[in-house]
Amino acid sequence: MRAAVLREPLDLVVEERPAPLPGPGEVLVRVTAVGVCGSDTHYFDHGRIGDFVVEAPLVLGHEAAGVIEAVGPGVADRHVGQRVSIEPGVPDRTCPECLAGRYNLCHRMEFFATPPVDGAFAEFVTVHAAFAHPVPDEVSDDAAALLEPLSVAVWACEKARVRPGDRVLVTGAGPIGLLALQTARAFGATDVTVLDVNPGRLEVARSYGATRTVVDDREPAPTVLLECSGSAAAVMSGLRALDRAGRAVLIGMGAEEVSVPVAHLQVREVVLTGVFRYANTWPTAIQLASSGRVDLDGLVTAHYGLQDTRLALTAARDVPGSIKVIVRPHQ
Amino acid sequence: MRAAVLREPLDLVVEERPAPLPGPGEVLVRVTAVGVCGSDTHYFDHGRIGDFVVEAPLVLGHEAAGVIEAVGPGVADRHVGQRVSIEPGVPDRTCPECLAGRYNLCHRMEFFATPPVDGAFAEFVTVHAAFAHPVPDEVSDDAAALLEPLSVAVWACEKARVRPGDRVLVTGAGPIGLLALQTARAFGATDVTVLDVNPGRLEVARSYGATRTVVDDREPAPTVLLECSGSAAAVMSGLRALDRAGRAVLIGMGAEEVSVPVAHLQVREVVLTGVFRYANTWPTAIQLASSGRVDLDGLVTAHYGLQDTRLALTAARDVPGSIKVIVRPHQ
Amino acid sequence: MRAAVLREPLDLVVEERPAPLPGPGEVLVRVTAVGVCGSDTHYFDHGRIGDFVVEAPLVLGHEAAGVIEAVGPGVADRHVGQRVSIEPGVPDRTCPECLAGRYNLCHRMEFFATPPVDGAFAEFVTVHAAFAHPVPDEVSDDAAALLEPLSVAVWACEKARVRPGDRVLVTGAGPIGLLALQTARAFGATDVTVLDVNPGRLEVARSYGATRTVVDDREPAPTVLLECSGSAAAVMSGLRALDRAGRAVLIGMGAEEVSVPVAHLQVREVVLTGVFRYANTWPTAIQLASSGRVDLDGLVTAHYGLQDTRLALTAARDVPGSIKVIVRPHQ
Amino acid sequence: MRAAVLREPLDLVVEERPAPLPGPGEVLVRVTAVGVCGSDTHYFDHGRIGDFVVEAPLVLGHEAAGVIEAVGPGVADRHVGQRVSIEPGVPDRTCPECLAGRYNLCHRMEFFATPPVDGAFAEFVTVHAAFAHPVPDEVSDDAAALLEPLSVAVWACEKARVRPGDRVLVTGAGPIGLLALQTARAFGATDVTVLDVNPGRLEVARSYGATRTVVDDREPAPTVLLECSGSAAAVMSGLRALDRAGRAVLIGMGAEEVSVPVAHLQVREVVLTGVFRYANTWPTAIQLASSGRVDLDGLVTAHYGLQDTRLALTAARDVPGSIKVIVRPHQ
Repeated sequence: MRAAVLREPLDLVVEERPAPLPGPGEVLVRVTAVGVCGSDTHYFDHGRIGDFVVEAPLVLGHEAAGVIEAVGPGVADRHVGQRVSIEPGVPDRTCPECLAGRYNLCHRMEFFATPPVDGAFAEFVTVHAAFAHPVPDEVSDDAAALLEPLSVAVWACEKARVRPGDRVLVTGAGPIGLLALQTARAFGATDVTVLDVNPGRLEVARSYGATRTVVDDREPAPTVLLECSGSAAAVMSGLRALDRAGRAVLIGMGAEEVSVPVAHLQVREVVLTGVFRYANTWPTAIQLASSGRVDLDGLVTAHYGLQDTRLALTAARDVPGSIKVIVRPHQ
Repeated sequence: MRAAVLREPLDLVVEERPAPLPGPGEVLVRVTAVGVCGSDTHYFDHGRIGDFVVEAPLVLGHEAAGVIEAVGPGVADRHVGQRVSIEPGVPDRTCPECLAGRYNLCHRMEFFATPPVDGAFAEFVTVHAAFAHPVPDEVSDDAAALLEPLSVAVWACEKARVRPGDRVLVTGAGPIGLLALQTARAFGATDVTVLDVNPGRLEVARSYGATRTVVDDREPAPTVLLECSGSAAAVMSGLRALDRAGRAVLIGMGAEEVSVPVAHLQVREVVLTGVFRYANTWPTAIQLASSGRVDLDGLVTAHYGLQDTRLALTAARDVPGSIKVIVRPHQ
Repeated sequence: MRAAVLREPLDLVVEERPAPLPGPGEVLVRVTAVGVCGSDTHYFDHGRIGDFVVEAPLVLGHEAAGVIEAVGPGVADRHVGQRVSIEPGVPDRTCPECLAGRYNLCHRMEFFATPPVDGAFAEFVTVHAAFAHPVPDEVSDDAAALLEPLSVAVWACEKARVRPGDRVLVTGAGPIGLLALQTARAFGATDVTVLDVNPGRLEVARSYGATRTVVDDREPAPTVLLECSGSAAAVMSGLRALDRAGRAVLIGMGAEEVSVPVAHLQVREVVLTGVFRYANTWPTAIQLASSGRVDLDGLVTAHYGLQDTRLALTAARDVPGSIKVIVRPHQ
Repeated sequence: MRAAVLREPLDLVVEERPAPLPGPGEVLVRVTAVGVCGSDTHYFDHGRIGDFVVEAPLVLGHEAAGVIEAVGPGVADRHVGQRVSIEPGVPDRTCPECLAGRYNLCHRMEFFATPPVDGAFAEFVTVHAAFAHPVPDEVSDDAAALLEPLSVAVWACEKARVRPGDRVLVTGAGPIGLLALQTARAFGATDVTVLDVNPGRLEVARSYGATRTVVDDREPAPTVLLECSGSAAAVMSGLRALDRAGRAVLIGMGAEEVSVPVAHLQVREVVLTGVFRYANTWPTAIQLASSGRVDLDGLVTAHYGLQDTRLALTAARDVPGSIKVIVRPHQ
């Protein structure tokens, strides 16, 4: 099979490799669509993200969907031909965090495209069957791939306990911010303000139902902050904007340490947390996508073949108007 | 002013009474619309509901909206001319339940149309200003009155923690069931089964987005039961239908004691509770109604003037196809 | 090795069997102490509990502790010689319930002494390493075995969210009731009423800190019910006793269906649930036992060797004053 | 009556004033004991705390207990002669925060000794009857006064959901830290580390059951941080010490803005919040004190008469070994 392999920063080649074989409990997936995430582009540019360093050739890509091509020993509840969305992190399922249902915090997690685990910019991948989620026909291949970033938004809205009556502030209108906007609305919020420095992004936000794209001080304060920019300034101003008993979820990754208005958090008893990946979100994400409550296909602005993965990786960064770029390994 | 007064069971007359004066902290409301609730009809028919007995002439009606006609001493945040929806139960705001935010459980609650407190089938009523909730123009008079039953549904969905990913079973498709259906969808549920013995009601449920109106055993089990019928059989079968870790909320009032499948509750760790009125629901209900997430006007099947309150009280019971009947005291 | 095998109801023999070998991820445990549970006695008497039927010879016993004698392939975090308490149910760790942290609801759970899975009235057992919990020296062998019933009480107190300020009612003062009493106190409750028909048991309850052993109507209503008797009458009267917003947990197993005061649950918004085994409780149980907050050794009223397992099984039922009986397979 | 009045920073005099009269719903309390809080000393030293500025003569003191001397009109559930602990903040009980049970966030709160509301360094005070909590005989006058700082600790432990199994880190061993330690233990924590720069304070902490007073990196990470120092360094290091899914509550007030390890919060999904006063804590605090689970009397290191209030205010700051200083207005 062919796979797009990052050898060094900025050095990505399409290679022939032996197709993987599904081990016990695994399925082999013929990959149909892979979304490009900012982290893929960051690895491509810099060869590392924080403590995660690319020290050997690595296949990127962790937002993936495909069709089951073969099942490994012991797999009873998946079958060849099923269309699946891949949950790209497989935890050990035995540590205290896993047993407590917080498998996203498993410290033995093996996650696609996180060194040294290969990702999905390839014709075939294997994954544990329980993490290959069957999707109904209403969910396109692209959408099935984008259930991964949607899961981030679902997880954040669950952490923030978004519900009808909330007034939500989304800072940052990139792909995650636009999904946070849509997901907050799907969780019942009718009042969602989206902020970004990019007017084009705000226009897209309005098309997805943002109530407003500037802070209106005559309106009541937000009750929920979904911080999707990773900007220290957005963290500070977003927290300051929150109402009493407000809830803030930091989704965007930025600096290691950030100044926070703690007196404000105390006096208003704001609750602040962050999200790291997600747990148990696929069933919900599938329902949101298949019911049309969240539109994923509309976020896709370009498609590339596997041989053009290099272009795909830079498109989101360089092409004006890009939101989400998809690689289709078999085209 | 005129008021419709229940003197004895089945004996309701429209009388002239002095209009009330707003006391300190109160507002005087010119009533524009009052919904007829099953409890009003029950008082009309039987003169009592459980331990609540009509022992003196009583004005019924507790789903009410109107326009502020005057404000009492000390009222700073309401003004004459505001359109308001009335929250009909005013708690003492000082007992432990009130201070804990569970004011619906206040044992000194004064509730419209609950003996000996008069209700809203009258041209004017007074209520504590904090319980006269301003509504925006998008919310009609009828809808403003129906924020009261909508609050019951909001409260139940909050107790059940309905959210995207849930599979909801609503038993009983009367006004509360239809609102529970709509509200569960507004809280993010995309899969809502509604059951009722009345096929006409089920047709209405489908028009409001019910996924199905029969139990389909090939589908996964519901995760939430919103029991709106008060029927012991529905409680039993609804609880038996629930998935592991399911949540059940008993909304419909029925028998004092009901047989419950406790072994099933234990083995599946189902959580069962009931709702009694509501607390802090109006802001959410207003958002749901004004945003169009919940349709209240479409539930209204007939209007009556105050002089025809007697007809209104029996219409919901006797007129085929009736869902919600509204009395307009000034027409 | 020797094992006590139930061949038919009332027909239990000690047999020689080959000692089991630890498979991948498993440990072999030399069993030092096994508590006798009412369910063991019930299987001995009747050969079944509800749908679980003993259709082939079965080793009973699921409250077990021991010393690791060997570790299977791939076990890195356990070593020979460690004293461990055995969590007797091993879930599949892959189904949606497991991934959500509710592994007690896993429908592929393999649970000691539940047909057809053998239990611990034997000299050696194997168990998945993650379910063999190391215990510190302060926890005796008997206490290590009794971490299993303590886990039931911990799980119930977590479900009931017992905390300082609660007024707890425990119905039934058998071993689980006495542990529920102690555990509720360890969770911060200072006011615990214990009810039972057996005055001897009530005396024991008082020695463990029960505030009172009769209902005192001059006292405020309980906020929490921990129902440990399985009696329908206790369910009814216990629920009726609860305060507004009270929480009830059904621990004792009894009839399939029980009459419940639903109107009372509704008007007071009581929350009712049941517990099925436990999840993630061992770390807490170990802390409670090793710190002395809960006394387990004091519950033990008799010890038996493996050859006397038959006597042990009936002692709790037949010997006056019995609370907890322990089998020591190697004595 | 006599009252200790702060006229300017460092200028405190004991004056004769007319005793207050209890208004409707209020009680008049003969003050028996008032604790000195750091905020009292701060007002005494600087005449302000943040935005709260002493612009007119002010009576300090908000940790108060006494005996009901008279009841105002409409008070039914309090009577002359009752010993009471005073909850010093009376909210408006009508705003959305109050109705939601978060009355501590009421923006019309009237709080003792917060300008311009007088406090309790006086022979008599009035307070709303619902905020004068009767205490049993087991609770001394001093302890009844100290239910106020205990309430801060209770509120923090509730926010942090401390329970058995938690490993708690308390930073700062002043009066609040020592109460947080005791309260965390009363909520079930058996492993509590207390840190402070003052070795004498650590010795006191050990006497109250602190498991250790240095961080031991061989032990598992804390699951809960109760930050009582207000120090930015403690916030940073405390948050960094927390385990996955840890919970942090900022109790100590310090800088307006503090640098926080947000990447750590995200990767570990730590939940951070602050507390502002407390709500609905007195019943729990009374149970903890009267049951002996928390020792308040042992914290008292000195008593002063009203005429020595000035000395009392500086004692906690200046006298080595001081923990809690009490003013007894009638001695």
